[in-house]
Amino acid sequence: MAAQKPAPAPSDKPHPDVSRRSQRSRRAIYDAALALVGEVGYPKTTIEGIAARAGVGKQTIYRWWTSKADVLLEAFLDLGEQATQAAGEAHAGGIPDTGDLAADLKAVLRATVDELRDPKFEAPSRALAAEGVVDEKLGREFVTKLLEPSLRLYVDRLRSAQETGDIRPEVDPRIALELFVSPLAQRWLQYTGPISYEYTDTLVDYALHGLAPR
Amino acid sequence: MAAQKPAPAPSDKPHPDVSRRSQRSRRAIYDAALALVGEVGYPKTTIEGIAARAGVGKQTIYRWWTSKADVLLEAFLDLGEQATQAAGEAHAGGIPDTGDLAADLKAVLRATVDELRDPKFEAPSRALAAEGVVDEKLGREFVTKLLEPSLRLYVDRLRSAQETGDIRPEVDPRIALELFVSPLAQRWLQYTGPISYEYTDTLVDYALHGLAPR
Repeated sequence: MAAQKPAPAPSDKPHPDVSRRSQRSRRAIYDAALALVGEVGYPKTTIEGIAARAGVGKQTIYRWWTSKADVLLEAFLDLGEQATQAAGEAHAGGIPDTGDLAADLKAVLRATVDELRDPKFEAPSRALAAEGVVDEKLGREFVTKLLEPSLRLYVDRLRSAQETGDIRPEVDPRIALELFVSPLAQRWLQYTGPISYEYTDTLVDYALHGLAPR
Repeated sequence: MAAQKPAPAPSDKPHPDVSRRSQRSRRAIYDAALALVGEVGYPKTTIEGIAARAGVGKQTIYRWWTSKADVLLEAFLDLGEQATQAAGEAHAGGIPDTGDLAADLKAVLRATVDELRDPKFEAPSRALAAEGVVDEKLGREFVTKLLEPSLRLYVDRLRSAQETGDIRPEVDPRIALELFVSPLAQRWLQYTGPISYEYTDTLVDYALHGLAPR
């Protein structure tokens, strides 16, 4: 058991074969849930549809989750973890702190640009975001569990920049991060403009140094 | 005819009674379209449903518009005009230019906060925005016709601020405006945080003066 890679979620320790099979089922369910919601939208995504596509019984899903919102939430968390692992060490501990605040913020936003353009991510994320716009409860739940944790990383990095004097002490980091995060989010969500590295770099420069002359 | 208030859309000049009746029908159709999309969402809104709710024949709608997207587009344009008229002179010519850039931007964003909280505006706007997230063609059309014209007003005001030296000359106004417009849009759309006058005032101060110390 010690050499066995542990299953991520169940807290009890099943027989290795069961664990491996569970992991395979979970992965198939996540993939099916994300693909389905991207294709048919949130309202038409059902537990039955996810089960059929994943090749598992409905009861397998109900054993682990209580609703399609729960399945999707975990599928997105898993997708985020995969993206973090793929990005390697740079992101593992949050936002890099090289001492150059502008460079650190630009690096993370460039990685976000890449993520937003990843087809595996785009369709399911849009389907979920669209539903969150008209379903306040779902919107708030997904923001709390999926979006806010990544925004906290910006808060931490901006707080550390306040300690080194790179950000004014009276600035509220939770609002400050929105100056570069929200424009990118809106361009992506609402097609209000093209997104590129040059664009996000510009946002960081404007946010840090202001629009008014110094 | 000279004293008659002209109908807003038809370019030919019908008999006054016909014009008045047309205006009444248009108003009823706009109201029905906005109410319906807010209640059932964009996909389930139909020309038939709008006609039934407005108490007009389907053919009356098809005489003026070719699709539900067209009807909704004009209904939102009309809603925006009503809001502008209700706000009075302050907004009539775009964004005020009192010479105090921060005050002007804060005033317009406070008016936007009021608009976003108006129940007449909220449900239909959310329904349309949600559909735009997953339907790129519709999203782009509505941005071009509904959102971008109001963003151009910010571009104009920021350009005039560049002439008076209140904004750095190298700043791109179309990107700059996103530093205070997009955070408000994202909080409203995605429920990422509360919106208030104090919040939008803070966005303007941060955007103009930057997060870094001077």
